This record gives sequence, C-alpha cells and structure tokens, in this order.
Amino acid sequence: MTQPAHFQPHPDLGELRYEGKAKRVYATADPAVYIVEYKDDATAFNGVKKAQIGGKGAINNAITAAIYPQLEAAGIPTHFIEKLSEREQRVKAVEIVPVEVIVRNVAAGSFSKRLNIEEGTPLPRPVVEYCYKSDALGDPLINTDTAVSLGWATETELARIRELALQVRDFLTPFFLARGIKLIDFKLEFGKLADGSIVLADEISPDTCRFWDAETNEKMDKDRFRRDLGGVEDAYAEMLKRVTQGV
Amino acid sequence: MTQPAHFQPHPDLGELRYEGKAKRVYATADPAVYIVEYKDDATAFNGVKKAQIGGKGAINNAITAAIYPQLEAAGIPTHFIEKLSEREQRVKAVEIVPVEVIVRNVAAGSFSKRLNIEEGTPLPRPVVEYCYKSDALGDPLINTDTAVSLGWATETELARIRELALQVRDFLTPFFLARGIKLIDFKLEFGKLADGSIVLADEISPDTCRFWDAETNEKMDKDRFRRDLGGVEDAYAEMLKRVTQGV
Repeated sequence: MTQPAHFQPHPDLGELRYEGKAKRVYATADPAVYIVEYKDDATAFNGVKKAQIGGKGAINNAITAAIYPQLEAAGIPTHFIEKLSEREQRVKAVEIVPVEVIVRNVAAGSFSKRLNIEEGTPLPRPVVEYCYKSDALGDPLINTDTAVSLGWATETELARIRELALQVRDFLTPFFLARGIKLIDFKLEFGKLADGSIVLADEISPDTCRFWDAETNEKMDKDRFRRDLGGVEDAYAEMLKRVTQGV
Repeated sequence: MTQPAHFQPHPDLGELRYEGKAKRVYATADPAVYIVEYKDDATAFNGVKKAQIGGKGAINNAITAAIYPQLEAAGIPTHFIEKLSEREQRVKAVEIVPVEVIVRNVAAGSFSKRLNIEEGTPLPRPVVEYCYKSDALGDPLINTDTAVSLGWATETELARIRELALQVRDFLTPFFLARGIKLIDFKLEFGKLADGSIVLADEISPDTCRFWDAETNEKMDKDRFRRDLGGVEDAYAEMLKRVTQGV
C-alpha cells in the first residue's frame, strides 16, 4: 500500500469520494466537510512515470497548511479548515471545477517546449492558462470559451477564478522571494461551495509549483523527479523549511 | 515549379514579401497594396504531407474573391481590393498578426481529438481558439494572455479580432447553410493596416474551413486530402459552384 505502516486514518473518515494521483478525498459525517489525505505517490507525464517520494505527503500537507491560512488572511477564500494529522487536513466540501489553472511568471515546462522559449525567460506579464482536468486525456490545454461551451464552468465563475488566481500569484510571488525562492509557475484548482461561491482548493506544494532557488536557480520542485535530477526528498524538505521558518 | 506553364504573373508584381504553404505575397509599386498569388500546393500535418491539388489556387482565389466583398458589405473590414487574375488578387498591405483564430460551431479535427468529443457534435455556443502562427512550431494552441505577454498583439487588438471573428461566423454560417453546407469550423487571420486598424486578411476556402454537406455530412474541404478520402478536386470545385451559384 502507499502509506507507511504507522499511518492511522483519522476516525472521522467516511466514504472515499475521490482518489487522485497524489491525494484521497473522504466524506465525513458533516456533508459540508471533507478530509483530504496526502499520499507519497508521485507521477509525471500523465502517469507514465510513477514512484514514491518518501515523506512527500506529509511535506505537501504541511506546506499547504502553512500557506492557505495566509491566503485567507490576504482575502482569498479557500477550502482549508485545519491540518488534522501528519497527512490529513479538514477542508470544506466543494465540487471541483474541472478546469485547472496554470499561472506563469517565467517560461518553463510545457510552455517553453510548445513555444520554443528558453526556460527561465521572464514573462513581461503573467500568463494564465487553462487545462481540462482529465487524467484520461492528459489534462489538455483549453481556453475559457471551450470550458463555457462544454459546460465545465460559467463565464462568471471563470472570471472569478482568474481574478483569484492572479491574487494568489500576487501574494505568493513576493512570499516565496522573501524565502529565497523564485516562483516560476504554479497550478491551481478551484471548487464550488454549496452556495455556488468559488474557493481555492487543492494544494500549493512542490508538486504543483515550480520553485527555483533565487541565488542558484536550482530546481526545488517536482521537476527533480520528472527530470531525474536526484535530491527530490531534500528539495521538498528544504521547501517546507523555507515556508515555515523563512530563509 | 508549382504553377502551370500558362501562368503569367501580373505585371504589377514586385518583390516577394512572404511565401506560405498555399500563397505568395508580393509588394507592388504602391506601398499600401500587395498582390496575393494562390498556389496549388497543399500541405497537412504541419507540412509532413505535401501534394498539389489541381486547380486549387484558382478555386480558393475565386471563393475568397466571392465572399470577401459580401463580408465588407456586412460591415467587416477586410484586406481585399479585387480579383486580378485566375490566381491573383490585389489586397491592402497589412502586417499579419501572428495569431491564427479558429472559430468552431461543431466539434471536429484537433478539437475532437484533444478533448475526445465525437466529430460532428454541435457546440452549444461557438468556441474561439487561438494559435501562434509558426510553421516551425506547428501553429501551437495559445491563449490571448500568451499573445499579449509575448507581444504578438495587444489586448485591444485581440478584443477587436475576437469581435470580428464572431461577426464573420454570424455571416458565414447562414450563408453556407443556404447553399446546403454546414460550416463546421474555420481559421481566420487578421492584419494591421498602416493606421493600426485590424482587418480580416488571408482566405476563406476549403483549405481554411471545414464544410460538410448539410444532407449527407460528406466532407467538402481539405479533410478529403488530409484523410485520403479521394475526390479532393471535385469537392473544391463543388464548393466554388455553391458559393458563386448557390445550391
């Protein structure tokens, strides 16, 4: 199994609602509350490359749990309620909008490849991209027209999502820079509460962001796994340290 | 060479300014005027598949020359001035905006493939997609953020381009339906005049549109070439007949 032997699920855990590549989401007795469990499983290239990264679940849980309350304090509504255990957090029950949002400060990854722009080239202004959340299709690039036409979100919801994504960027970019990290790009997911309002969901971690050391440009994120650069666990641990203790 | 032996270039032809996969663009003595020459060359899959389609240049020139004045009359500014010869037309000199615009009424082609939506599925509302015009990169899908950030067009220009693209769709969809043709999707290019205003440029033809017979759903466009369906020349000739003579 994917969990260490000492892992004890929280007693509130109900039915498994969703299992993704890196997390499981459980119902609870309260229909407005879910419990998210972070796994050590790592995948890349749409699941073609698979491995476990020791301690990743705990680290990503801790990083997300450190950042989300600060986003809330900055006025960005999120699904986060509290960290429950090393691998679990309590969150508001949301319906995930099946549109992943990528915010780019600097060209890297698929963007660099698709447009032949050298990795590390700063973008004169941030680029927001949208992908359809579908493992089966490999999260294909879409635009907001497609999402609206196919019923994945309304125009109003997408405008709110874009607004929040740029607010997250405006908070996180200086937050990480103050910790010696360039925030290159990141992926966000959003959810709808029962009242229809949009909140930030999912995680913010080295799985979902590109972090480069501000001095050395060393990669401190999942690209170490994707590109076999080694030192994956150390990079994740270092990111947790910088997020929680500063530089 | 790619032209039949009897082809005599127009005496106004100046310096070759641009050669694309299907057309050549020449300067003239008047800096505000270009001459466009339509070739028989056909390519698909970003130039991997190449052939000549007999009479294609003349047909696409004739179809475009029949449609553009009607778009102008409907209030859509275009680069078109006049048809000069079988393969040539005089157009206003523009700087092409390197953002190709695809308007989709019905799922087909790359859209169907990318999102696993059956070809022929009507879209509840039209989808406008944008690609970066680059043969070297295979015209990759982008969005307007990317175009603005990388300096390919301004936000104002892209808003105008979108508005015009939807006006073109609103004109062409019933225009073709009245001629027994479903307009599935089409690709447009836009140019900037010396005063900075945006006009529709390029062609409207079976090379750049998907046309399905409204009765039989038979493909009447370049997909016959892409997919080796045969009857390519006949389909192009039939489209010219329907455009110029009605059904």
